[in-house]
Amino acid sequence: MKLTNLEDLFVQELKDLYSAENQITKALPRMAKAASSPELKNAFQEHLEVTRNQVQRLEQIFQDLGVNPRGKKCVGMEGLIEEGKELLENDADEAVIDAGLLAAAQKVEHYEMAAYGTVCAFAKLLGNDDAADLLSQTLEEEKETDLRLSQIAEQSVNVQAANGNDEEDEEDED
Amino acid sequence: MKLTNLEDLFVQELKDLYSAENQITKALPRMAKAASSPELKNAFQEHLEVTRNQVQRLEQIFQDLGVNPRGKKCVGMEGLIEEGKELLENDADEAVIDAGLLAAAQKVEHYEMAAYGTVCAFAKLLGNDDAADLLSQTLEEEKETDLRLSQIAEQSVNVQAANGNDEEDEEDED
Repeated sequence: MKLTNLEDLFVQELKDLYSAENQITKALPRMAKAASSPELKNAFQEHLEVTRNQVQRLEQIFQDLGVNPRGKKCVGMEGLIEEGKELLENDADEAVIDAGLLAAAQKVEHYEMAAYGTVCAFAKLLGNDDAADLLSQTLEEEKETDLRLSQIAEQSVNVQAANGNDEEDEEDED
Repeated sequence: MKLTNLEDLFVQELKDLYSAENQITKALPRMAKAASSPELKNAFQEHLEVTRNQVQRLEQIFQDLGVNPRGKKCVGMEGLIEEGKELLENDADEAVIDAGLLAAAQKVEHYEMAAYGTVCAFAKLLGNDDAADLLSQTLEEEKETDLRLSQIAEQSVNVQAANGNDEEDEEDED
């Protein structure tokens, strides 16, 4: 591909994100199914709806640019999703799986925070205010999702993974 | 692998990070070589030194845990580094390559921010204060590197990529 100017790179990064979001849309139902914590399951399911809306924002931007969104596979997201799959191949306690799924999801969120931060900056420099506005909405949603995942980790999922065996012992004593 | 408790997951995530850091150590010289902006080249070279120190911190933690750091390939980082390689395969203007390299580097930084955030939280929950201390030092360094990259993007690299052709035109007029 020819990358002569920032507009070309902007389009390439948007195509990368479009592929990334579509991969996430396919991965989230698997992650929700694999999660045991109701809070985590719920967070994944809700994020699926948010992600679908983010895909639509990208489609709106592509339509305004007159560019086909397809044709690039995001290999970065492919690797991150593969990590989540690897986790589920382990012989693991369900509370530990939850902590691992949450960690994998935060890597995905951070990828998106970096990528949307970049395309948002590019859109502003290119004077494409409509795209900048749509992309910054998504960027804020990704930051919010990451914060929510951190809260779920701190308040329940990680604590349960750390105390899992102790709690089972206590139950046995009752 | 058996993931019975949070300690098992902690070790697995640390191994993943050890592989990630080693992959970054190999990728950074290539990125520094490919960069045209002296600031960006310098940032990559300096980050290589920081990364080597981060690898040593991980080795210290593995030594304290009595665990071999090897044996897991970080497929997430593999994908992110592959993205950077793909960029260099394009027929591109050097200012645009710089903007793309910077974007790729911020994805790598964000991966590390998520991963170190996770292992740092795990170390604290497991009462491993020495590991938590070492990991939080690295986490802060990754955040600082990401901020520095954002500054380089805003102040020079992205601006040059956006104005590249205009500047060349101006030079032609002189």
